[in-house]
Amino acid sequence: MAEDIKSKIESANKVAIQKVLSSRPFLVDVKPAIEVLPGMKKRSIFHAGPPVDWKRMCGPMKGAVVATMIFEKWVNSWDEAVKMVEDGGVDLSPNHDHDAVGPMAGVISPSMPVFVVKNDKHGNTNYGRIVENKVQFGGYDRQAIESLEFWSTVLAPAIGKALGKIKREGGKGIDLKSIMARALYMGDELHNRPVAGTALFAMTIMSHVIETSDRDQVLKVIDYLASNEIFFLCLAMAACKATMNAASNTEYSTLVTVMARNGTDFGIKVSGLGNKWFTGPSGMVRGMYFPGFGEKDANPDMGDSAITETTGVGGFALADSPAILSLVGGTAEDALKYTKQMREITMTLNDTFLIPIFDFQGTGTGIDIRKVVKTGILPIIDTAIAHKEPGIGMIGAGLVNPPMEAFKGALREFASKYKL
Amino acid sequence: MAEDIKSKIESANKVAIQKVLSSRPFLVDVKPAIEVLPGMKKRSIFHAGPPVDWKRMCGPMKGAVVATMIFEKWVNSWDEAVKMVEDGGVDLSPNHDHDAVGPMAGVISPSMPVFVVKNDKHGNTNYGRIVENKVQFGGYDRQAIESLEFWSTVLAPAIGKALGKIKREGGKGIDLKSIMARALYMGDELHNRPVAGTALFAMTIMSHVIETSDRDQVLKVIDYLASNEIFFLCLAMAACKATMNAASNTEYSTLVTVMARNGTDFGIKVSGLGNKWFTGPSGMVRGMYFPGFGEKDANPDMGDSAITETTGVGGFALADSPAILSLVGGTAEDALKYTKQMREITMTLNDTFLIPIFDFQGTGTGIDIRKVVKTGILPIIDTAIAHKEPGIGMIGAGLVNPPMEAFKGALREFASKYKL
Repeated sequence: MAEDIKSKIESANKVAIQKVLSSRPFLVDVKPAIEVLPGMKKRSIFHAGPPVDWKRMCGPMKGAVVATMIFEKWVNSWDEAVKMVEDGGVDLSPNHDHDAVGPMAGVISPSMPVFVVKNDKHGNTNYGRIVENKVQFGGYDRQAIESLEFWSTVLAPAIGKALGKIKREGGKGIDLKSIMARALYMGDELHNRPVAGTALFAMTIMSHVIETSDRDQVLKVIDYLASNEIFFLCLAMAACKATMNAASNTEYSTLVTVMARNGTDFGIKVSGLGNKWFTGPSGMVRGMYFPGFGEKDANPDMGDSAITETTGVGGFALADSPAILSLVGGTAEDALKYTKQMREITMTLNDTFLIPIFDFQGTGTGIDIRKVVKTGILPIIDTAIAHKEPGIGMIGAGLVNPPMEAFKGALREFASKYKL
Repeated sequence: MAEDIKSKIESANKVAIQKVLSSRPFLVDVKPAIEVLPGMKKRSIFHAGPPVDWKRMCGPMKGAVVATMIFEKWVNSWDEAVKMVEDGGVDLSPNHDHDAVGPMAGVISPSMPVFVVKNDKHGNTNYGRIVENKVQFGGYDRQAIESLEFWSTVLAPAIGKALGKIKREGGKGIDLKSIMARALYMGDELHNRPVAGTALFAMTIMSHVIETSDRDQVLKVIDYLASNEIFFLCLAMAACKATMNAASNTEYSTLVTVMARNGTDFGIKVSGLGNKWFTGPSGMVRGMYFPGFGEKDANPDMGDSAITETTGVGGFALADSPAILSLVGGTAEDALKYTKQMREITMTLNDTFLIPIFDFQGTGTGIDIRKVVKTGILPIIDTAIAHKEPGIGMIGAGLVNPPMEAFKGALREFASKYKL
């Protein structure tokens, strides 16, 4: 009986990891969330990580929710926003429960355009929020809200028109996996450092933007892409979500399909355990701080961006990106060590995300909850740090681990569900 | 006496290497060679490497000379070109003797536009030929000549106009050293792999091209930059030439300021030995070949591109670029080993060209002829391989060393000149 279940698990994991490896995420559109996101209603705000109510919500996520409500013109101020939330006027729900991901606070509201990513191999469609450096870190002043307006009125329409042209000409969209694979050869790990990804994306889409937007718009788009190196993170995240989503809901599989944090709790989902979250407290990031800030100012770990590590990049590809150490701290030896260590808790080496410095071996891909609990080795995540108060923003970056109890909780549930 | 000379050498090398480190090459213009290149006459053709006459010239360089003569409309065919050269109708001379560099055969003719690079720190101006994948490898058919025409009529004018705008707005041009430093963090070594440099250059110049060229031209430029990853090599070479040129002609200095090959001979110049070439036979490249080709087809080592190694990048920065091993062969361990070994024959670690995987130490920079002869360690160069017959083209890429006799010859001359 035990042997029978073990072999069912092995078979299920083979199926699930094959879905991960064979996924082909393409950027196909940019659309307002209300038009495409499953379950998005007129008064919905989706957020990063597992579910959290307003009372337990951390400062920067509260700031991001308020900013988004002002952006939507539901309210004009912090106080009005808080009152509306406390009166139950807003539906809060996790991005991951609606096929979406967002960086840091990750808040998505109805009229906010989202990237639409289709997994061309398996047919599922997923959604990603833009990366910006204000609202997602809890900023809610005029300047922060303008960054959402720029995205809605300039960047999103221009990218959308360019994608429309690509599709009219018979293209599938923009091949994100190809860009990701090349970016890993170019010093990106695709979470905190997506510099090459941004440049490769710009080189891919620019001629289409030029042909479909006027010169003034084109210049704004180029200027934005040239000065926002972090841009590609949101596309890497959406591509990773589309990849892991294809492998979710495989009965008997112990594959982790989601790791996400709301700044209060860290949650995971497991393929064989349906849509259920397993959580523990969000950790404090071991990081490097901008001048004037320190650990006492830091919010705990936050954001859906750990979907990159869930898919075998991010912290799992640190060896591809030693330059990131100037941002997150540590030595090159650490980076190589972490990347090697991740092989011990994953199901396979990636066949597309490769590590030249390891003679082109793949990154460890597909976290197995059994291996995490058995070895005691936790996934390594590299991430930005938000100030714990709303309205201040990013104060550093570093490395963090998930809480072991999320994996233990999932394994207990797995044992119970499948009668191990 | 011996001590006195030794201290003069040390002082001279300090001055020379400081000039290398402090150089700030900017791309400032694109102009026809006849208008800017010192010594360029109406019937001049400049070429890569040390001097070589037609009889000793290798096949691919002959092909490139013929292609360039057809491009200039001096002749219509191979036979006409050969006759004109043999009748003394063409002045052949090395690029490096005219402040210029060119990749592979490196041929520059009067009406061909060249990049103009100014060393903003030291005031010297140098010139670089475009990289293309036909003529420089010895192609001389219609298609090969069209690649020069595209450069002359589309790419060069568009880049020239964009640079004009940057200067009218008070800019110095495009900061090549900044792009090079960032590209090394992005997996480039800037000789065989300048992929990130090309993308960063495109991101830097594109908005200026859009504002100064019409849409049709803009699309051609973008398409070219997006599909010619090797493009930035010519700018890295010109920047390196402008860097080493500033350090040339320093009496008593043992610094190598030029390494260049014409496909027959490998030549070096040394700062304290003026404009004199020291040569030995060009080596055979230990490489990986395109399908259908092998060592028997290969021309010996060719091109001015070893100016990159002379400046501390290229083969000296292999540890930054493990992805290049898929092109040139070898293991990641080799790449790290070569880069470390180059410290033994160089004067300093670069303060701008850094190696994240070595915890941000600089690349070994400034080859000292004494150290090469004493240790027996030869500079490592990674390079493309041309077919030995004209008209065929690139057949592979690999690693090569200069001949020791060039360094021994230079050291003998140094001893004689300075009475060591």
